[in-house]
Amino acid sequence: MRKLLQERIVPILGGSTLSDAADCGPVDGCVVVSTDSFVVAPLFFPGGDIGSLAVCGTVNDLAVSGAKPLWLTLSLIIEEGLPLPLLERVLRSVADAARQCDVQVIAGDTKVVPRGAADQLFINTTGIGVKRQSNELSCTALRPSDVLLVSGPIGQHGIAVLVAREQLSLTPMPVSDCAPLHVACAALQDELGVDLRAMRDATRGGVSAVLHEWSEASGTTMKLNESLLPIAPAVRGACELLGLDALYVANEGTFVAAVAPQAVDRAIAALHAVQVSSQAIAIGEVIERGNSAVVIERLFGRLHPVDEPSGAPLPRIC
Amino acid sequence: MRKLLQERIVPILGGSTLSDAADCGPVDGCVVVSTDSFVVAPLFFPGGDIGSLAVCGTVNDLAVSGAKPLWLTLSLIIEEGLPLPLLERVLRSVADAARQCDVQVIAGDTKVVPRGAADQLFINTTGIGVKRQSNELSCTALRPSDVLLVSGPIGQHGIAVLVAREQLSLTPMPVSDCAPLHVACAALQDELGVDLRAMRDATRGGVSAVLHEWSEASGTTMKLNESLLPIAPAVRGACELLGLDALYVANEGTFVAAVAPQAVDRAIAALHAVQVSSQAIAIGEVIERGNSAVVIERLFGRLHPVDEPSGAPLPRIC
Repeated sequence: MRKLLQERIVPILGGSTLSDAADCGPVDGCVVVSTDSFVVAPLFFPGGDIGSLAVCGTVNDLAVSGAKPLWLTLSLIIEEGLPLPLLERVLRSVADAARQCDVQVIAGDTKVVPRGAADQLFINTTGIGVKRQSNELSCTALRPSDVLLVSGPIGQHGIAVLVAREQLSLTPMPVSDCAPLHVACAALQDELGVDLRAMRDATRGGVSAVLHEWSEASGTTMKLNESLLPIAPAVRGACELLGLDALYVANEGTFVAAVAPQAVDRAIAALHAVQVSSQAIAIGEVIERGNSAVVIERLFGRLHPVDEPSGAPLPRIC
Repeated sequence: MRKLLQERIVPILGGSTLSDAADCGPVDGCVVVSTDSFVVAPLFFPGGDIGSLAVCGTVNDLAVSGAKPLWLTLSLIIEEGLPLPLLERVLRSVADAARQCDVQVIAGDTKVVPRGAADQLFINTTGIGVKRQSNELSCTALRPSDVLLVSGPIGQHGIAVLVAREQLSLTPMPVSDCAPLHVACAALQDELGVDLRAMRDATRGGVSAVLHEWSEASGTTMKLNESLLPIAPAVRGACELLGLDALYVANEGTFVAAVAPQAVDRAIAALHAVQVSSQAIAIGEVIERGNSAVVIERLFGRLHPVDEPSGAPLPRIC
């Protein structure tokens, strides 16, 4: 996907703001805009549905860019024959999530396509927010000895959707982390100021994709400590069963942050004060650029490279 | 579609701004936002393609609401297997249209779905603009003796797409009117000021859909004069062949305007000075509310009601 964007899309569309790898583009000094299409299958999964996912996904893009989310647009592509009660359930979920995120749905569009031309329902949400602080958050600002945090257990969303889609019965059932991050992100920003380098929601490609982008943007290496990675038992079990690595699995309510070393304790305390990030933990640090963009210290102390996610091991998880 | 919106979507999502029938929502005093998904089939048709259509469609929504379009987001849902050269052709078309509209693409998203889960390519564009003038354009402001204009020949887009999709060979071939309207709308606004009541791009449901919405919003009847309707020979021929009425066929570069009676000549002159609206013409007037929301004076002088478009006689034309 990153290759497609960098080699095919960005060169044609130009646009200085599109070319940084984040999903958000600043439109002037203070307005920030993000857009996302959601094609998740199934539409409903433990912990969420395409409606809450669409709202949280877009709100989170704005939140991790340091913006306060204000407005959403909502565009539906509906396959002919989609049962109306199902559509209404999704819309109620959109409305609930929007209320929870304190954003207003201000414009919408609906297209119905004939049976077979789309799979049930796709949703696009575009979010508009305003920057909360004047200082820039940027993954180009990462430097050696900065500390890497995650706001909670990783890999939950992708595994929950996959298990729901394949109708596997696992005990316990993995549950998506789908949730808005704006309060946690704001708390971290307010507490840390310039000691907060960057935040990113770890969606497609998981924590690994974020760290690869950050490595490339900052010319450093990201070093993780395997023993510190928070992975829930249900996710760990499903990953082992399915041959997946939780580092590559999408999250929808968990973000990665890079903070100055002297600010780690304050960062953790600020995150722990917010429900959604009450299990935040440091998972590694930024080091001088080595041979690999991302490395992980395995349980026995050896360093292994972490490859960039490629292909689509988990299609349609968002 | 209007029924679906009014009965199912708006009640759930609330939002005062969603409930007026326009596609655009004002987000504060001066920012205007519009969102649209495009599912047109085929992707390429005489006069345009899904890329130019997506840009023009969203730019035009902003333009007719009285805003200057500034920024666009672009979200792609791609069916696995879509040939890359085809995608690039669409993206080049997006880039060209954005340049022509003087808007910047500031954020994007790409989702690839497995073969069969979508038909080739869907595009969502969300546009952000700023209001050009302080006075409100509103279809609630229409009053008897206001004059109704169209900016050019009607029905071209829908017919062109339909003919391309069905691979009919007609001579001459109908060509879509797909084009940006921001310059024409701005010219009309600047010339007329408060004498301009409302503008609306006549997309799905054509001129008829716009007039039905305006009638409902203003409590008046819209009276058309059949002899004045500008319909190109290729469109007239195709409509007769296919049993369609050009009044119900979508346009993508033609808008309807309601102006004060004393401003008609100035309106026509301002529109004729702009290429895209060089064939603008008055097609009727607003009258006191009668039995029908929209009526048409046929060639022999009798008044006929014009029904509201219903169903989807032309699916996937935008």
